[in-house]
Amino acid sequence: MLNDLAAEVRALLVEKVSATGGHLGPNLGVVELSIALHRVFDSPQEPIIFDTSHQSYVHKMLTGRSHQFDTLRKKGGLSGYTDRAESEHDWTESSHASAALSYADGLAKAKELTGDGERNVVAVVGDGALTGGMCWEALNNIASGDRNVVVVINDNGRSYSPTIGGIADNLSAIRTRHGYDELMEEGKKRLKQMGWVGERTYEALAAFKEGVKSQLVPTEMFSDLGLKYVGPVNGHDLDHLLHDLEYAKGYDGPIIVHVVTEKGHGFAPAVNDVKDQMHATGIIDPVTGLPSGNAPGPKWTSAFSEELIQAGRDRDDIVAITAAMAGPTGLQPFADEFPDRFFDVGIAEAHALTSAAGLALGGMHPVVALYSTFLNRGFDQLLMDVGLLKLPVTLVLDRAGVTGSDGASHNGVWDLAIASIVPGIRIAAPRDGARLREQFQEAITVDDGPTAVRFPKGELPADVEAVSRLNDGVDILRYSDAGDEDPDAVSVLIVSVGALADVALAVAESLAEEHVDVTVVDPRWVAPVPGSVLALADDHDLVVTVEDGVIRGGVGSLISEAMNAAEIDTPIRHLAFPDVFPKHASRSELLAEVGLDAEGATASVMGWMENIFDRD
Amino acid sequence: MLNDLAAEVRALLVEKVSATGGHLGPNLGVVELSIALHRVFDSPQEPIIFDTSHQSYVHKMLTGRSHQFDTLRKKGGLSGYTDRAESEHDWTESSHASAALSYADGLAKAKELTGDGERNVVAVVGDGALTGGMCWEALNNIASGDRNVVVVINDNGRSYSPTIGGIADNLSAIRTRHGYDELMEEGKKRLKQMGWVGERTYEALAAFKEGVKSQLVPTEMFSDLGLKYVGPVNGHDLDHLLHDLEYAKGYDGPIIVHVVTEKGHGFAPAVNDVKDQMHATGIIDPVTGLPSGNAPGPKWTSAFSEELIQAGRDRDDIVAITAAMAGPTGLQPFADEFPDRFFDVGIAEAHALTSAAGLALGGMHPVVALYSTFLNRGFDQLLMDVGLLKLPVTLVLDRAGVTGSDGASHNGVWDLAIASIVPGIRIAAPRDGARLREQFQEAITVDDGPTAVRFPKGELPADVEAVSRLNDGVDILRYSDAGDEDPDAVSVLIVSVGALADVALAVAESLAEEHVDVTVVDPRWVAPVPGSVLALADDHDLVVTVEDGVIRGGVGSLISEAMNAAEIDTPIRHLAFPDVFPKHASRSELLAEVGLDAEGATASVMGWMENIFDRD
Repeated sequence: MLNDLAAEVRALLVEKVSATGGHLGPNLGVVELSIALHRVFDSPQEPIIFDTSHQSYVHKMLTGRSHQFDTLRKKGGLSGYTDRAESEHDWTESSHASAALSYADGLAKAKELTGDGERNVVAVVGDGALTGGMCWEALNNIASGDRNVVVVINDNGRSYSPTIGGIADNLSAIRTRHGYDELMEEGKKRLKQMGWVGERTYEALAAFKEGVKSQLVPTEMFSDLGLKYVGPVNGHDLDHLLHDLEYAKGYDGPIIVHVVTEKGHGFAPAVNDVKDQMHATGIIDPVTGLPSGNAPGPKWTSAFSEELIQAGRDRDDIVAITAAMAGPTGLQPFADEFPDRFFDVGIAEAHALTSAAGLALGGMHPVVALYSTFLNRGFDQLLMDVGLLKLPVTLVLDRAGVTGSDGASHNGVWDLAIASIVPGIRIAAPRDGARLREQFQEAITVDDGPTAVRFPKGELPADVEAVSRLNDGVDILRYSDAGDEDPDAVSVLIVSVGALADVALAVAESLAEEHVDVTVVDPRWVAPVPGSVLALADDHDLVVTVEDGVIRGGVGSLISEAMNAAEIDTPIRHLAFPDVFPKHASRSELLAEVGLDAEGATASVMGWMENIFDRD
Repeated sequence: MLNDLAAEVRALLVEKVSATGGHLGPNLGVVELSIALHRVFDSPQEPIIFDTSHQSYVHKMLTGRSHQFDTLRKKGGLSGYTDRAESEHDWTESSHASAALSYADGLAKAKELTGDGERNVVAVVGDGALTGGMCWEALNNIASGDRNVVVVINDNGRSYSPTIGGIADNLSAIRTRHGYDELMEEGKKRLKQMGWVGERTYEALAAFKEGVKSQLVPTEMFSDLGLKYVGPVNGHDLDHLLHDLEYAKGYDGPIIVHVVTEKGHGFAPAVNDVKDQMHATGIIDPVTGLPSGNAPGPKWTSAFSEELIQAGRDRDDIVAITAAMAGPTGLQPFADEFPDRFFDVGIAEAHALTSAAGLALGGMHPVVALYSTFLNRGFDQLLMDVGLLKLPVTLVLDRAGVTGSDGASHNGVWDLAIASIVPGIRIAAPRDGARLREQFQEAITVDDGPTAVRFPKGELPADVEAVSRLNDGVDILRYSDAGDEDPDAVSVLIVSVGALADVALAVAESLAEEHVDVTVVDPRWVAPVPGSVLALADDHDLVVTVEDGVIRGGVGSLISEAMNAAEIDTPIRHLAFPDVFPKHASRSELLAEVGLDAEGATASVMGWMENIFDRD
């Protein structure tokens, strides 16, 4: 009966996620696991915490939300992650990896203190997320207590891409060792039943044949930490899953259940997608798995990717670092061409930054490509390990600004505020593909401190050519002209940051129609504030900054600080992302919601001018 | 001969550090280790990277700096940490723990790429620092390569305080297991020779007697990660040290050398200091180890500590969390009285924050006490795991603002800038002990989001009573009065942040003498900006903010943003910490250096006023 449920859930997943896009592969991999977890544990009294929680779709279906999947990731609809507003079965909301074990440790401590310590707290974490240092910190603490924490390792051998490092080798060794007897009995057949196909089967067999020592040593890592270990269990075998989870439920103290799953299980197009087993997909055909939307145009990521390859060919000292995101950050082509100069450090942004510092100390120029939102995880390392030593490390921050449908924690709206705190850093916010290309090349020529280049998710806009470029590299996108006709016209300087140039220019257009004398300037390098921007600010009656980062400590704020320091008291106003966590919606919906579309921005500026200049 | 050198070094350490203050205990523990490292490895071609580097004094003596120890931690003198400006043998400068292995991984990668891969990169890391997630991320990467990284674990069983958690139990198990044979042969004698005294010996023996299973299981954790392991070696036995380090030098690939040391070794007052084995000391008598300076007055930390105890007595839901700093952050008395509600998570700020989030989800009100500078390590967790879920977690940030002699990375000048990015957070900056007490109690009554209370290092200033308190809790420290005599007088609003109230009032005094109409206001809660501060800003001709955090994104900047949003265009100027990494010096020297003493601040304000109002 539970197998029937699994089949139904799997069919529903394929049908619904094909139509909306979403994290199809990970959820297909946890169908049986999610069913077994809800069968065995008493949610929500026994909390089930999903790490990153992009694999919580099945959990959502099992907790009364299956009818809402048509609205998945849409404005006002079902979140792509757990969301406390949706259900009492959801405990967390951030999509940043490796945090679930820490939550579980805290919740278990609270349960113990409130007399509910007999119940379990369950955390489901991928093998990829285990490469993150937070998991280590949490396991170290979970192991030192005797609370009922059940750590379920959802081991599909991949994070986004195949998991790397010692922990991955160790998990692989465990899988291999425990599979040995059965292999001898059943040969390749069982592996195939588990969905292990092609190269993975070959690798497992090869390990035995070659007698690789590292795969044969006792693997007591978790026991060494003081944690009971159960597994590995086939994550698509409901009977075995129920058995091992029941054991874990009854076990008194912290316990690890090692579940081997296959990403994309049961959906051939996902299983056969060797690249990422449909980790996250757009709208696809539910049978073939092929994209069924419009073919996308060139992307920001691709422009960077091409420039990086060129830089790699030009210079031997260029190395590239990813935190388990080689594909989405555009590093894969570089990795293919320069495998020796490419380093995937796992889901480990802190190590990404500090190992980059080490590489720079050794004479390299590292390019660290991260999603903007994940820079939060490396702030201290950027400040202390890179910035303090003035090392030439170039950060490339993809998915910067408002990203939209991935929800609050995936927006890249904090990068400008935190990166600009680092003394000596130079930050580029290219407005289009041409600027991204030139500014990345400029960034890697800087040899006396860190640089960052940040750009949005998605397709490149049309290039916005400058009217002129000033000596300090600042682009004038539009010169004031009303002043020619009316020397008493109010003059406004719009400072346009990065990809919001179209909004800045649209506002300027509207103001010009009202005979306002408008200049639009793109600093290109937004930190430190270029001198020419300050001079322009001094020459105008009002300064308006436009950016899609947080208003708190953003570029507008930085320019305001620089003006105060230069004793320039022109009134200044900021159009930026407000001090809230936004719900998921499309990028354009979100920008409109917070007044960062052309219409909203124009209305704000008109209102401010009316108050300042008594216009009507 | 090397033993003679060790004796000389140890004597010099005691003599010099007694006179200046500094990290005496940790350096006494690594005398033999540092000598052996320099004997075996070819520094600087084979870099030796000290984690945190407060244990680098011996290294400094061995690399030509022994004559400079009279200037230790003094302005213009020897840094208390490694410092690239001092020597080519120094590679890093930040004092934040757990980063050395990541540096080493990066440096080893660079050496391989530049054809120097035959040489070793050595990282010296304490067992305490191993509880930090960065070490895990780094070990995972070091293990996945075959580069010549030598990880020396300096295992003294403590970070600042005894190391906790699974990793500590594991190291302890290794020590125990390997000591077993010898124990049987020599009994307690050998442990005592190794300096294991009192409770530690008892624990080790007890483990055997009770046959504690966790201490008897095979301990292959490092092997499981794919790392060769050598040890444990007595860290005060030069022959054995040289032997094992030579082996590590010749080993082809990454290797761990587990060195057991005793903090304070060879200096009885340190060895017998059960609290922290003289981790960091002030000026002391070089024979008795007793403090020889003036007895300090009551400290900021103590005031918080007392309030926390009271809160613990009043409310069952108050729990306290430290990241291996129970003593210095004032949590120890709470831990003693409420052991069940106290959690030391190890050097693991990320886990500290997210496990606090878990505790809050379970109905507790966690108080997380950190040094201000270490909040950098938990920014993402504060934003995503606490802030996004609007959880009632109270951060207590000790050593906030300019700290001085510990150097650039120990200053707590970034907390206001990064914490204020978190939507919904409320931040208190008490100006004195009375305010610290009342604001901490206010903070723990907030139940719909995070709060932070930040205060400086050292002794409490005299309380600064307010002239009046406004309805929104803002304190007026001084009312303008010049306006009574001269209605045309220029009016200045000084916004005083936290412990710089004395500077703000001194500036006000000087301005009043010039017949300026000055009001001094202390918002107490600096984020969000109280409405009354904005109203006052609107009523004055100039606003000056005074804080000892960074100017970039600090409270001044926050007030400026709030004024812009409220369309208040009164000129504003910021007195704050500039955009640099300061060298070590005393707090007062540093404040004067950056113009944050009364004299410098007054001069700045006078200059600004002259430019704005054409005063003379």
